[in-house]
Amino acid sequence: MILTVTCNPAVDLTYRVDSFEPGAVHRVTEVDARPGGKGINVARVLHQLDEPVIALTLGNVELADRLEDHGVPAEVVGGLAEVRRTVVIHATETTSLWEPGSRAMPEAADLMLERLVNRLPSASVVVVSGSLPPGLTVHLPLQIAKLARKAGVPVVLDVDDNALRSAVDNAGAILTPNLEELARLVGPVTDPGDAAASLARRTGAPVVVTCGADGLVGADGRERWHVAPPAVVSGNPTGAGDATAAGIARGLAHGWSWPETLRHAAALGTAAVLVPTAGEVDLAAYHSFVHPIGTP
Amino acid sequence: MILTVTCNPAVDLTYRVDSFEPGAVHRVTEVDARPGGKGINVARVLHQLDEPVIALTLGNVELADRLEDHGVPAEVVGGLAEVRRTVVIHATETTSLWEPGSRAMPEAADLMLERLVNRLPSASVVVVSGSLPPGLTVHLPLQIAKLARKAGVPVVLDVDDNALRSAVDNAGAILTPNLEELARLVGPVTDPGDAAASLARRTGAPVVVTCGADGLVGADGRERWHVAPPAVVSGNPTGAGDATAAGIARGLAHGWSWPETLRHAAALGTAAVLVPTAGEVDLAAYHSFVHPIGTP
Repeated sequence: MILTVTCNPAVDLTYRVDSFEPGAVHRVTEVDARPGGKGINVARVLHQLDEPVIALTLGNVELADRLEDHGVPAEVVGGLAEVRRTVVIHATETTSLWEPGSRAMPEAADLMLERLVNRLPSASVVVVSGSLPPGLTVHLPLQIAKLARKAGVPVVLDVDDNALRSAVDNAGAILTPNLEELARLVGPVTDPGDAAASLARRTGAPVVVTCGADGLVGADGRERWHVAPPAVVSGNPTGAGDATAAGIARGLAHGWSWPETLRHAAALGTAAVLVPTAGEVDLAAYHSFVHPIGTP
Repeated sequence: MILTVTCNPAVDLTYRVDSFEPGAVHRVTEVDARPGGKGINVARVLHQLDEPVIALTLGNVELADRLEDHGVPAEVVGGLAEVRRTVVIHATETTSLWEPGSRAMPEAADLMLERLVNRLPSASVVVVSGSLPPGLTVHLPLQIAKLARKAGVPVVLDVDDNALRSAVDNAGAILTPNLEELARLVGPVTDPGDAAASLARRTGAPVVVTCGADGLVGADGRERWHVAPPAVVSGNPTGAGDATAAGIARGLAHGWSWPETLRHAAALGTAAVLVPTAGEVDLAAYHSFVHPIGTP
């Protein structure tokens, strides 16, 4: 059972309007409302792959209802009175509005840690994804990583700058920064492989750097890997990182080699771009990427 | 006890952004989320005036929570799985997005009528406001008006075109169209007083036409009234009509004369423009309008 952890979930609203003009009143012709947030997106992709998964998330009753409506296997631990919204408006161009996260309740971190500890004995991998709402310590992902490690469960941290920084030297967690995050963490990056290897020596765990069109670069203390994207595609890159994280978690859960894991992770990232909404992949494309015609 | 009826409630989201540009991603700096919809706004204004009121509304648990958080005396009868949102974005200009109402459940009308019948014995006035979500008959306001009349309770209908049309000849309800709605109902209007009087003869009840900057024009079968706005103000006209309806309901509840009722209604409409959010009035301004300095 893979466990994803989301501290700053969202309700993602997508609006279609015939035309969009600042200063005007618009009747929305189509509304899509779905539960979002990075860890929830990771869980959706894993669930789509029939991988046993639970999205452990802060939230409220409204979010729990939405997760149930959308068939996302989840446990909402509470801790948020309001769940932030993102609004994406599709007209000739796409305009986005991101609400700030509403403040977490004082008991939010404890609620999350308590449920995590309960679920760790049946967890194969823990993935902590995304930002933290106001009111939570930046060290929460580190605390989660330490608890998981103590239980012998590998942890992937796909978290924001401050939480990433907090987790570098202590967690033994697999970090998955993109190039910009990596540069903010370690300074200018000339060779992602070198930077990943150097960071992996500090963390004591593999590092995977997501390099966009250049694919994935990974390293542990001894080896380095590079996987190019399986295809050049255009579409919606939002959620590609979450699909990549899902691929890494999947490989870890099955004990795949790192090259094989990254091949699947890159394929999932690319297959996510082909779907207009975050938290989903084009399954047929994914299968064609990892099993090209003519391969056994 | 005044009873307001809302069939198409909303959650009104107001976003402040530093600048707004189609095609861009925006971080929202301030979020306001409040329960909305015309009948709920009428109830908020009456509650602000310490007038005993209950907002009877279709809705779901989320709406009930929001009404409670905002201290709006309300009974949510159910009937809606989703409550539509309105999004208003404030930057240098104000941009609005209105979601369509989500479809009412098949039992929604019955739930509303059942709760209405239960509450009618303690009601002094019923105000039915706003549009109808998909799935509800346009005759629901008419049905409500008939039930109220049977119980001897006066009814104000501030409803959309089709529901307005349905209620003209049968309901004995007080209609409150604006000039455009009146023209769509009866044809070109040259004199609002004439049109109101003619419509009042058809409905068998007073008619109040809201004429914007020209104030309120009312008529029953015998008399006509005209009340100019108490002041020229600028601000947010959204919700001014709901404050006016609140004033009419208040006058009816207290048995005030129509000229006195309309004087208060016009003052409330103007006092609503002074407040940036719908469903509230500037109480001090309202009192100064209805009790000018130097009057007893």
